[in-house]
Amino acid sequence: MSSEQTLPERPADVPSAEAAEGGEGGEGGEKLSKKALKKMEKEKEKAEKKRLQQEKEAAAKAQADANDVSKDKYGDTPIIGTADYKPLTQKRYKLHELAEIADGTNVLIRARVHNARSQSAKLAFLNLRDRLDTIQAVIAASETLSRQMVKFASTLSSESIVDVVGTVRGVTDPIKSASISNAELHIEELWVISRAPNQMPIQVEDAESRIPNENAAEEKTETGRPTVTLPTRLDNRVIDLRSTLNQAIFQIRDGVQQLFEEYLRKHDFLKIDTPKLLGAPSEGGANVFEVKYFDKKAYLAQSPQLYKQMMIAADYKRVFETAPVFRAENSNTTRHLTEYTSLDLEMEFEHDYHDVIHFIRDLLLYILQGLETRYTKQTERVRKEYKTEAFLVPKNPADVPIITFREGVALLKEAGTEISELEDINSTEEKQLGNLIRTKYNTDFYILTEYPLDARAFYTMPHKTDPRFSHSYDFMLRGQEVLSGAQRIHDQAMLKERCKVLGIDADGPGLKDYVNTFAYGCAPHAGGAFGAERIVLNWLGLGNVRLATLFPRDPSRLTP
Amino acid sequence: MSSEQTLPERPADVPSAEAAEGGEGGEGGEKLSKKALKKMEKEKEKAEKKRLQQEKEAAAKAQADANDVSKDKYGDTPIIGTADYKPLTQKRYKLHELAEIADGTNVLIRARVHNARSQSAKLAFLNLRDRLDTIQAVIAASETLSRQMVKFASTLSSESIVDVVGTVRGVTDPIKSASISNAELHIEELWVISRAPNQMPIQVEDAESRIPNENAAEEKTETGRPTVTLPTRLDNRVIDLRSTLNQAIFQIRDGVQQLFEEYLRKHDFLKIDTPKLLGAPSEGGANVFEVKYFDKKAYLAQSPQLYKQMMIAADYKRVFETAPVFRAENSNTTRHLTEYTSLDLEMEFEHDYHDVIHFIRDLLLYILQGLETRYTKQTERVRKEYKTEAFLVPKNPADVPIITFREGVALLKEAGTEISELEDINSTEEKQLGNLIRTKYNTDFYILTEYPLDARAFYTMPHKTDPRFSHSYDFMLRGQEVLSGAQRIHDQAMLKERCKVLGIDADGPGLKDYVNTFAYGCAPHAGGAFGAERIVLNWLGLGNVRLATLFPRDPSRLTP
Repeated sequence: MSSEQTLPERPADVPSAEAAEGGEGGEGGEKLSKKALKKMEKEKEKAEKKRLQQEKEAAAKAQADANDVSKDKYGDTPIIGTADYKPLTQKRYKLHELAEIADGTNVLIRARVHNARSQSAKLAFLNLRDRLDTIQAVIAASETLSRQMVKFASTLSSESIVDVVGTVRGVTDPIKSASISNAELHIEELWVISRAPNQMPIQVEDAESRIPNENAAEEKTETGRPTVTLPTRLDNRVIDLRSTLNQAIFQIRDGVQQLFEEYLRKHDFLKIDTPKLLGAPSEGGANVFEVKYFDKKAYLAQSPQLYKQMMIAADYKRVFETAPVFRAENSNTTRHLTEYTSLDLEMEFEHDYHDVIHFIRDLLLYILQGLETRYTKQTERVRKEYKTEAFLVPKNPADVPIITFREGVALLKEAGTEISELEDINSTEEKQLGNLIRTKYNTDFYILTEYPLDARAFYTMPHKTDPRFSHSYDFMLRGQEVLSGAQRIHDQAMLKERCKVLGIDADGPGLKDYVNTFAYGCAPHAGGAFGAERIVLNWLGLGNVRLATLFPRDPSRLTP
Repeated sequence: MSSEQTLPERPADVPSAEAAEGGEGGEGGEKLSKKALKKMEKEKEKAEKKRLQQEKEAAAKAQADANDVSKDKYGDTPIIGTADYKPLTQKRYKLHELAEIADGTNVLIRARVHNARSQSAKLAFLNLRDRLDTIQAVIAASETLSRQMVKFASTLSSESIVDVVGTVRGVTDPIKSASISNAELHIEELWVISRAPNQMPIQVEDAESRIPNENAAEEKTETGRPTVTLPTRLDNRVIDLRSTLNQAIFQIRDGVQQLFEEYLRKHDFLKIDTPKLLGAPSEGGANVFEVKYFDKKAYLAQSPQLYKQMMIAADYKRVFETAPVFRAENSNTTRHLTEYTSLDLEMEFEHDYHDVIHFIRDLLLYILQGLETRYTKQTERVRKEYKTEAFLVPKNPADVPIITFREGVALLKEAGTEISELEDINSTEEKQLGNLIRTKYNTDFYILTEYPLDARAFYTMPHKTDPRFSHSYDFMLRGQEVLSGAQRIHDQAMLKERCKVLGIDADGPGLKDYVNTFAYGCAPHAGGAFGAERIVLNWLGLGNVRLATLFPRDPSRLTP
C-alpha cells in the first residue's frame, strides 16, 4: 500500500486542463499571430522545465524510498473514493475502546491528530483524539522503522485525520496529557486520510476552555492561553465543536431529547409533525417572521401550540413534537434565540389537570436522573470547566416541591422583595425564588403553579375558584423556567368569551381554524413545552443559551 | 354526581352580563331620557318573563327528576376544570382493552359517540369509538334504569365525548358494525364530557372511505354515500383525522420515525438540530423561501445537507436529524409539498461508500419489517380501503437488489423504452423500472446506484473510474424514490474544482462556510435523506403525499 504508487492525479487538476483545451479548440479556426506563437513557445519551455524538475524530484524520492525500510508503512492515501488502493485489514477499534483492551493487542484506529511533537530524530509523540477521548501514540525509529517515518509523523499538522496501525501497551506512570492515562499506542503504520493546514483560524485546544462572559474581550485563562471570545468561536464553529467540551455538551443535548422521547413513547405518546408555515400569524401577531410565499405571505410558527391542541381535538390523545420554533424578538440576551428546539407535549386528562403536572414532573425527573446516570462523564467534563455546582436532583417524585404562585410570592415577600401576586415575576425574581427553594427544600427542580391569569395566553383555563389565577405551571431548574404549560380551554363558547374579553379576534384568519376546532367536541387536556437548550443550559450551568446550540441564530447572527 | 346540581353557570354567560353592567356604570352620571326609561322598563318586563319561564322549567325538571330512578346516573358534567364535582371512581380502561376482558367486568371508559340510535322507548344503541376501535354499547330501560336515561342516550349527538360506566358482556353473534365484535357494553352510567353539535361540516364516517383521485368530483362509494373530496376533507382536517383510516395512517407515520430513530440510536448515531434560518440561499438559490429577518433577509433551509456534513467535519461521526424542510416549488402534483419532514442521516466510512449503502439498506429493511410486524392492524385497515397489493418485503439484506443506473437503463431499453444512460430517468420510467425489478427479483424494495454525475448535486463524489457517473444512490419502494444519497466530496480542493466546473460560486455567502469546512481535515462520508411521507405513501399505496401529512402545505394551501 504505497501511496506514492497509487495516488491518482487529484481530480482537481483535470477540469482546468479541459478548460484550456476547450479554449484552444474555440480559437482553432483562426491564424495565430506572431505574438501568440512567441507566447506558445515560452509556455512550451516552461512546461519542459517543470517536467525536468519533476523527474529530478521523483528520482530523489525513489532513492530515498530505496533506503526507507518503512516506505510501505506510511504516507498519504488517495482521496478516498477517487482511486483504488489496498485497504488496511487489521481489526478496527474505536479510540475509547483502547482504554480497556489487553496489553499487546494490535489495533487499527482512525483518529484526529490532536498534536504532534518530535522528541528527537528517532522519537516522536502524537496525541490522537476521537470525540471525548485522547490517547498518546509513540513512534520510535528502529531496525524496522525508519527515521523518515518518524519525521513524517512528527511533522503532521494538528487536526489531520489518520489511520494508525499499532500495538497497545500499558504504562506505569499515568499519562496526564491524554484522557486514556493507562495505555499508549506504539505506531507501526501511519496513513493520512485527510490533511489539515498548518495554520488554523482557531485551535481546538483553545475551544477547550470555558467562556466566562459573552461580551468579555480576550482574557487569559489559568493555563496562560488567551480565551477565544464566543463570536470568534461561533464564526469558526465547525472547529470549535470538535473540542471535548462541545462533544460533551452536544451528547448531553442529544441525551435530553432521547430521554424525552423514550419516556413519552413508553407512555403511549404519538410523534406528530405540524406545519411551520402558517397562512396567518396565530398567537397575537407580534414577534412572528414573515415569509414570501409565492404571491402571498406566510408566517413562521412560533410554537406548535394550536396544532398540538387540534391533534387532541382529532382524538390523538397524547402527542409530542420536537421541532424548531421561530421568534422574531429583537433582543440580544444570553437567554433568547430567534430559532430553537421546542420539546412539546399535549395530553388528555380525566378530571384534574394536576394529573398532567405529575406526569410531566415524572418525565423531567426521568430526564434528569437519566443525565445523571448515563451522561456522568460528559457532565463532569463540562461542570469542571464551568465550575458548576452539582445539580440537586430530587430522589423521588414526592420530593419535587409543587408551589402555587401565591406561595412563591409570599416566600419572596418574606425575603424582602416587593412584588404583587397578580403580576408575573421577572427572571431575577425567578432566580431568587429558586435560591430560596433550594435552601428550604434542598432541590434544584421545583414546580410553580396557578400563575395570574393575565400573565398567561388566552387559551389558558382560569382557576376553578379564583379567576384572577389560572390552571398553569412553570417547571424550574436552578431557578430558571425550562417548561411552561397549562390546562387549555376545551369548550368553544368559553374560549370565544375569553378572546372577547381580551380583545382577540377569534374569527380572524389566524385563529378561526383553531377556535372552530372546539365546536366539535374536545376532551379536557393540558400540556407544555420544554426548551431543549434550557434543560442543557441549567443542567450544566452554562450561562448562555448559544453554548447549548450547534449553530445559534440571533438578531445579528445567521451564519455559519 | 348529579350534573344538574353541580353544573355551574357556564362562564360564557358571565362576561356579557359584566359588559352590560359596565355599560350602565359608564352612563350613570347623566340623567336618563324618557326613551331610555321606557326601554329600561321593557327590558325589566322581559327579564321577569324569562325568570318565570326558567322557574317553570326548573319545576318541571324537578318533577321529572323525582320520577327518574336514574337521575344520579347521567347528565352533562361541568366543563372540566371550572367547577368541583364528584368524579367517577371505577377503574378506567381503554376501549380496545374491552375486547380481551373477562365477561361481566364492570368498567369505566371515555370515548366518542360514533353514533346513537333508538330502537324503542326502552332500548337504544351507541357505537363508541376510540382511535382505531369501536364497541357497541346497549342501554335498556328496567326497574333500575329509567326511560328518561334511554332517551338521553339515544339523542346524544355523534362526536360527543362521554364517560361510560357499564358491564362488558360477550355476544354469540359477532357484531359487524363495531371493530370489537365479540362483546358489547351494557351502560349503567352515562356522563357527557363535551358535546358536539347536531350538524357537523363533514361526517367522520365519510372520512372512512378512500379518495380515488385528488381532483375527482364527488362520486358515490360502494356504500352509496357520496365521497367527500380531498380539499373538503383538508378544510375540515381535525374531523377528518378522527377516522380510523387516518388514525392508522398517522400511527404508521409515527412508526416510521420511531423505527428510524431506534435503529440509528442502536448504531451510535447522534441527533442534531441544525438551523432552518439561513443567511443566504445555499443550494443554488432556486426554490428557496425568503424571510423578512429584522432589517435583513433570511432564507428557509431546503435541507440540512450542508450542516449535517459540517457536523461530520466537526467529528460527530454519525448524525441524524428529523425536521421540516422547505421547498418553494410552484408545482401542484400528488408528489410535492412546500414543507415536509426529512429524515436525514450522514456517517463516516472507512474505505468504500458501499458500506453506507449497506447500512442504509439494513435500516430501511428494519423499518419495513417493523411496519410489517408492529403495525399489522393499521396497515390492513388502510390497504383494504385503498385496495393496495401487499408489499413485497425482502427477507434478508442480500435479497435487496443493488443495481447500477446503467444496468437499470439496460433493463428499460430491453423493455422498449428509449433513454440515455447519461440522463436521469423520470418518475414514469422509475415506476416502470420498479415493475420490471418486481417481476425479476420479487421485491418492492431495491437500490439504484451510480447515477450520471450531471444528475446529482455539486458535492457528489464522481465515480472512481468513470467520471460521467457518480458515487450516488436512490432507494426505491414500489418504484418510487424514498431516499436519495451519495458519497460527498470531503476534499476542499476537489470540491472547489467541482464548483468551478459547474459555475457555482464556492466563495459566495451561501457556500463559503460550507466549503471552508473542508479545509480543516474531514473524514470520508456519505449519507442520505428519506422523505417520511414517501415511505408511508408507498408502504400503504396512497397515491397522494397529502394523505400522509397531518396539515399539508402546497402553493395553494396554507390552512388549517
